[in-house]
Amino acid sequence: MIKLGIIGIGNMGTIHSQLIIDGKTPEIELTAVADRDESRRAWVKENLPGVKVFTEGEELINSGICDSVLVAVPHYQHPELTIKAFNKGLHVLCEKPSGVYTKHVREMNEAAEKSGLSFGMVFQMRANSVFKKIKEIISSEKLGAVKRVSWLITDWYRSQYYYNSGNWRASWNGEGGGVLLNQAPHNLDLLQWICGMPARVHAFCHEGKWHDIEVEDDVTAYFEYPNGATGVFITTTADSPGDNRFSITLEKGTLVCEKGNLTLHKLAMNEREFCVTSMDSWAHPECETITVETDGKDPQHAAVLNAFAANILHGTPLIAKGEEGINSLTLSNAMYLSSWLNKTIEIPFDEDLFLEELNKRREKSRKK
Amino acid sequence: MIKLGIIGIGNMGTIHSQLIIDGKTPEIELTAVADRDESRRAWVKENLPGVKVFTEGEELINSGICDSVLVAVPHYQHPELTIKAFNKGLHVLCEKPSGVYTKHVREMNEAAEKSGLSFGMVFQMRANSVFKKIKEIISSEKLGAVKRVSWLITDWYRSQYYYNSGNWRASWNGEGGGVLLNQAPHNLDLLQWICGMPARVHAFCHEGKWHDIEVEDDVTAYFEYPNGATGVFITTTADSPGDNRFSITLEKGTLVCEKGNLTLHKLAMNEREFCVTSMDSWAHPECETITVETDGKDPQHAAVLNAFAANILHGTPLIAKGEEGINSLTLSNAMYLSSWLNKTIEIPFDEDLFLEELNKRREKSRKK
Repeated sequence: MIKLGIIGIGNMGTIHSQLIIDGKTPEIELTAVADRDESRRAWVKENLPGVKVFTEGEELINSGICDSVLVAVPHYQHPELTIKAFNKGLHVLCEKPSGVYTKHVREMNEAAEKSGLSFGMVFQMRANSVFKKIKEIISSEKLGAVKRVSWLITDWYRSQYYYNSGNWRASWNGEGGGVLLNQAPHNLDLLQWICGMPARVHAFCHEGKWHDIEVEDDVTAYFEYPNGATGVFITTTADSPGDNRFSITLEKGTLVCEKGNLTLHKLAMNEREFCVTSMDSWAHPECETITVETDGKDPQHAAVLNAFAANILHGTPLIAKGEEGINSLTLSNAMYLSSWLNKTIEIPFDEDLFLEELNKRREKSRKK
Repeated sequence: MIKLGIIGIGNMGTIHSQLIIDGKTPEIELTAVADRDESRRAWVKENLPGVKVFTEGEELINSGICDSVLVAVPHYQHPELTIKAFNKGLHVLCEKPSGVYTKHVREMNEAAEKSGLSFGMVFQMRANSVFKKIKEIISSEKLGAVKRVSWLITDWYRSQYYYNSGNWRASWNGEGGGVLLNQAPHNLDLLQWICGMPARVHAFCHEGKWHDIEVEDDVTAYFEYPNGATGVFITTTADSPGDNRFSITLEKGTLVCEKGNLTLHKLAMNEREFCVTSMDSWAHPECETITVETDGKDPQHAAVLNAFAANILHGTPLIAKGEEGINSLTLSNAMYLSSWLNKTIEIPFDEDLFLEELNKRREKSRKK
């Protein structure tokens, strides 16, 4: 059993705590919770009997009653609390996003490496059977190289009421971003997990386009990958019902993931070879369309928690390594920078320049 | 009956001539054909008995045996032959694209206006029942304003053999462009016909990416419309089997056209109103999904030919007015300019600058 402390018992922290007290995580004992909000501490006292309650995450880290922590506080604090926990010898599971700016997350990753402790990131969509299957197919290289990626992920609908529910929400100084930092990190993580990191990004982020907020709620981004493949990623919190269509074109086939269904259009021959050997102007390689079967499982957060405990106790793999959290943040930081400067951003980008541009926006933020 | 002359009896001219001799166009008599290629003239003599044959389009125009012409020659010559026909008092039906650069097409449109004669463009996809239905739904404004457009149209597959089949193909000096000028003009025309013209374009055109050609065979373009809507248009001749998914998100619903099927996700309430009145953070407006029925017809080129004859004889509407051909060309010209200069292009753009940039490429073209 690991002795876990949860820092931040808001929306996400509460979901994790329920899984633990509901017996979904047999190798985790919830020993402590910390939250700066008095009403949330009162909720813990009433609903999580026997769990020690702190105001500050740092008190929990120093308490000696946890060997591991789950960091589920506002995004800016993810790296600083994670670093403090590593410095005290605690294993860390961190909620997404890894932080707000990659420079900060880089320090966190260095602390993780130095510590040698377990470090996981809560990317529960990696445990979904469909995304696991896509990852497996692409990684096997049976379909050859990726040529094109397109993810239209516009079903993250939020009303103005949602944005009004907390003054830290959707502000540069509170959350540090909009749909790219709050809703889309899962999709950006899956994108980089499955297709790797692009070499450059050009993005069009529209701030306060559909809601009365200061950050972006509508994004179209274009990528170029090191092998020459291209991609688009389109997201918003204003489309209803919204789309979720992820397609990946490879040399020997195309994968389309839509509404939880995975379809493979499988070519009999590598298109790159067909292109130069065909003696017909308009012919296509032979193609077979297959519905790809998966085990249908989507164990969500419980899988992430259990894999984290097992990693500590038995050395088995995490669902997502903490160090990999920087990748989706690199994508969203690059998108912001591209949109702010109206130019294509090469990856890696100038992290000091990004922070400078972010800080300009934090200074004028509604959230003080 | 109109007396039609076909200038250029290559791929497209031949298709049109077959429809006429097969009796699909009761109000059209094919009186003459012109082609610079001796083997094509021989084909006409053998296959189109009674049709007078010329080498030059200008001879056909001046012959006095036609009251109308179909211009189906290489793209650069569309405006010049059309202008000559108008100057001789002939009605003109012009194959797509309207030309290679908008400055030239603008002169053609001025000649058309001055002539007062019938002027049609061969955009036969406007006669397709699904696209007609989309146009009808959007124009009715029953679904409110457009918010987002996405057209992934990557099923224009062509082998290297296709490009090798003529040295004018896929060259700056021969065709004047690649997939945007040869395959995608239909889609670009439908896009502007249905959604109107964008205010600005940012595009990423990749030249010779998948084929040994000097022009683009892979394009991702981003649009911003005057009302704030955004769009993407992705096309290539290298994906197999390729995608064809056109989705339009409006305030009161989303239309998705895929594989010839049209689906409407219809909201019970305007999303813009729901967004600001909902007292729930995560709720969506109620939505009903409907398969939109059409008459299933796709009369293609015959519809364009018959409407052209009827426009001359009875004053009934064309499928596509010739003057509207400049719109899709404006889109593709703006995409090229954006990609060449690596910047966002406002519409209208500097047409002299475009021509200057095009001419730089023509000078170095493989086709002399």
